[in-house]
Amino acid sequence: MSELRRDPVDGRWVIIATERRKRPVDFYTQAYEQKGAEKCPFCEGHEAQTPPEIFSIREGAGAPNTPGWRVRVIPNKFPALRIEGELHREGVGYFDRMSGTGAHEVIIESPRHDVTRATMDLSDIEHVYRAYRERIVDLRHDRRFKYVMLFKNYGEAAGASLAHPHSQLIALPILPKHIVEEMNGSREYYQYKERCIFCDIIQQETDMEERIVCQNEGFIAVSPWAPIFPFEVWILPKSHDSCFEDCNPAQLKNLAAISNEVHKRLDAALRRPHYNSILHTSPFDEQYNNYYHWHIEIMPRLTRIAGFEYGSGFYINPVLPEEAAEFLREMDVG
Amino acid sequence: MSELRRDPVDGRWVIIATERRKRPVDFYTQAYEQKGAEKCPFCEGHEAQTPPEIFSIREGAGAPNTPGWRVRVIPNKFPALRIEGELHREGVGYFDRMSGTGAHEVIIESPRHDVTRATMDLSDIEHVYRAYRERIVDLRHDRRFKYVMLFKNYGEAAGASLAHPHSQLIALPILPKHIVEEMNGSREYYQYKERCIFCDIIQQETDMEERIVCQNEGFIAVSPWAPIFPFEVWILPKSHDSCFEDCNPAQLKNLAAISNEVHKRLDAALRRPHYNSILHTSPFDEQYNNYYHWHIEIMPRLTRIAGFEYGSGFYINPVLPEEAAEFLREMDVG
Repeated sequence: MSELRRDPVDGRWVIIATERRKRPVDFYTQAYEQKGAEKCPFCEGHEAQTPPEIFSIREGAGAPNTPGWRVRVIPNKFPALRIEGELHREGVGYFDRMSGTGAHEVIIESPRHDVTRATMDLSDIEHVYRAYRERIVDLRHDRRFKYVMLFKNYGEAAGASLAHPHSQLIALPILPKHIVEEMNGSREYYQYKERCIFCDIIQQETDMEERIVCQNEGFIAVSPWAPIFPFEVWILPKSHDSCFEDCNPAQLKNLAAISNEVHKRLDAALRRPHYNSILHTSPFDEQYNNYYHWHIEIMPRLTRIAGFEYGSGFYINPVLPEEAAEFLREMDVG
Repeated sequence: MSELRRDPVDGRWVIIATERRKRPVDFYTQAYEQKGAEKCPFCEGHEAQTPPEIFSIREGAGAPNTPGWRVRVIPNKFPALRIEGELHREGVGYFDRMSGTGAHEVIIESPRHDVTRATMDLSDIEHVYRAYRERIVDLRHDRRFKYVMLFKNYGEAAGASLAHPHSQLIALPILPKHIVEEMNGSREYYQYKERCIFCDIIQQETDMEERIVCQNEGFIAVSPWAPIFPFEVWILPKSHDSCFEDCNPAQLKNLAAISNEVHKRLDAALRRPHYNSILHTSPFDEQYNNYYHWHIEIMPRLTRIAGFEYGSGFYINPVLPEEAAEFLREMDVG
């Protein structure tokens, strides 16, 4: 029997269409192959093929834009937004327009072309999250920006055009719509209950157990109650934390470990699926608060999204999150 | 120079990334071929291969589920929601769940397998819209339902699994999120201005001219100010009308004509692209109102949506709507 489920934070309803029930095997697609190393501008030794680096983590004392880095951050060569110029807002009749001011950067996650979140050393994943944090901390000083979006597209089905492991960062002069909705939903809940809705969800998931994928000292990974994608996984810090950039080294270590484990489980269950992951954190204007709880959402791209789903904001998911979580839990990932 | 644009109704911001400017030729994909006629359950003469029909438009006096129909409406064989059963709502801790009660129907738009909105006779397109209207009018008597979503997926990239021309209908016990947002946005505007925001937009588009694709006596087709998809087109009735199901025969005739013309222009410009189209109309509870204006949104599926766009509600569109409209206007469609 199908059911409708409502996301407690943003209020979105999802059909969990169990009449069309599917097992992971139904979703096996071509495992993503990270080809193209010969001509890859992100590989170590090819530093001259990219714009000059903004930030890097290096083990030795190497100069910028030379080999020896672990993580390297560069401007996007084809940016959606440009860092130069004043932020300009204007009306055009009933319409609103703003200059395309922002930042668009690429975080190259490893000097190696063929590694993944599941196969990287934990210390290297930690470096990636440290680079995320450093870039946010730097960009929040720029008063033109309200939010920094950090996301990863893995595989063509997820929109990646280069196979080398990388994330992207977009600093925005506005708030993305979904972040506004999450902030509003969690703020309203707090006004009513004086508790963080995400903390309550973590408590409930811990009690119910059925949607937990894995956990460690600092983090829990769950299949959310009303996922819009099959095998969607959220990683949340166990203690209340409104913004990612406040993570201390111990938290980054735990985050690297759980990220690695979740991706090992997804890769084992679904044969290295294409996926997107997105960091959700508080906007700069309300960075420290009692109601929002930063987290990472990982969305394997296993099904095509039909257009009515964009147009309506109403999603159909053929996999029960309880079954997805159980399946991911049962994977033997050593 | 890229710019940020805000949709005046739902408040969503879109990056129009003109740095990555593209021409229609950059989007040419495989024209969708409507194969599979031999085994198609929707073709005339194959009526026994589908569940019994709910509604049909016939020219002669043929019996149900026999040849001779122009449009045929059947239950979806693999429904996302089921019509049987009470609507049951319950809490699960902090979560909300509802029984999967609803309707999921298929509108077979033609007895012929290989026609499209661009090649069908106008009277046949009119029959399709008449069937939409009849089904909404019938389903709105069911007090369990709050909304009927009518949409069309054309081509695999748009989520279609069968090539025979068809639309789908989903009757829902809840309101889709995006409809809630549009209702709220237009209601707020009305409270402020005492005018329908869509009527104001139509007035402004008519004055500015640059985003008009085509028009006739009753309808206008425009590239919206802040489209999330390249070559997105909206069709709106020129006079204020809050719900589609109120259309009279003259309006349906004009709607059929403009729908045909828009699809001829899209097919000529983009070589028969895969697309989704969605009817946006007022919910049953507030069917007649001064603030909402029904319309149809057509979204060619030319680019892959990256995951951060789902996750953030923030879209990047590489095509200026003014250029898309100009290109579509210039097509010679006879």
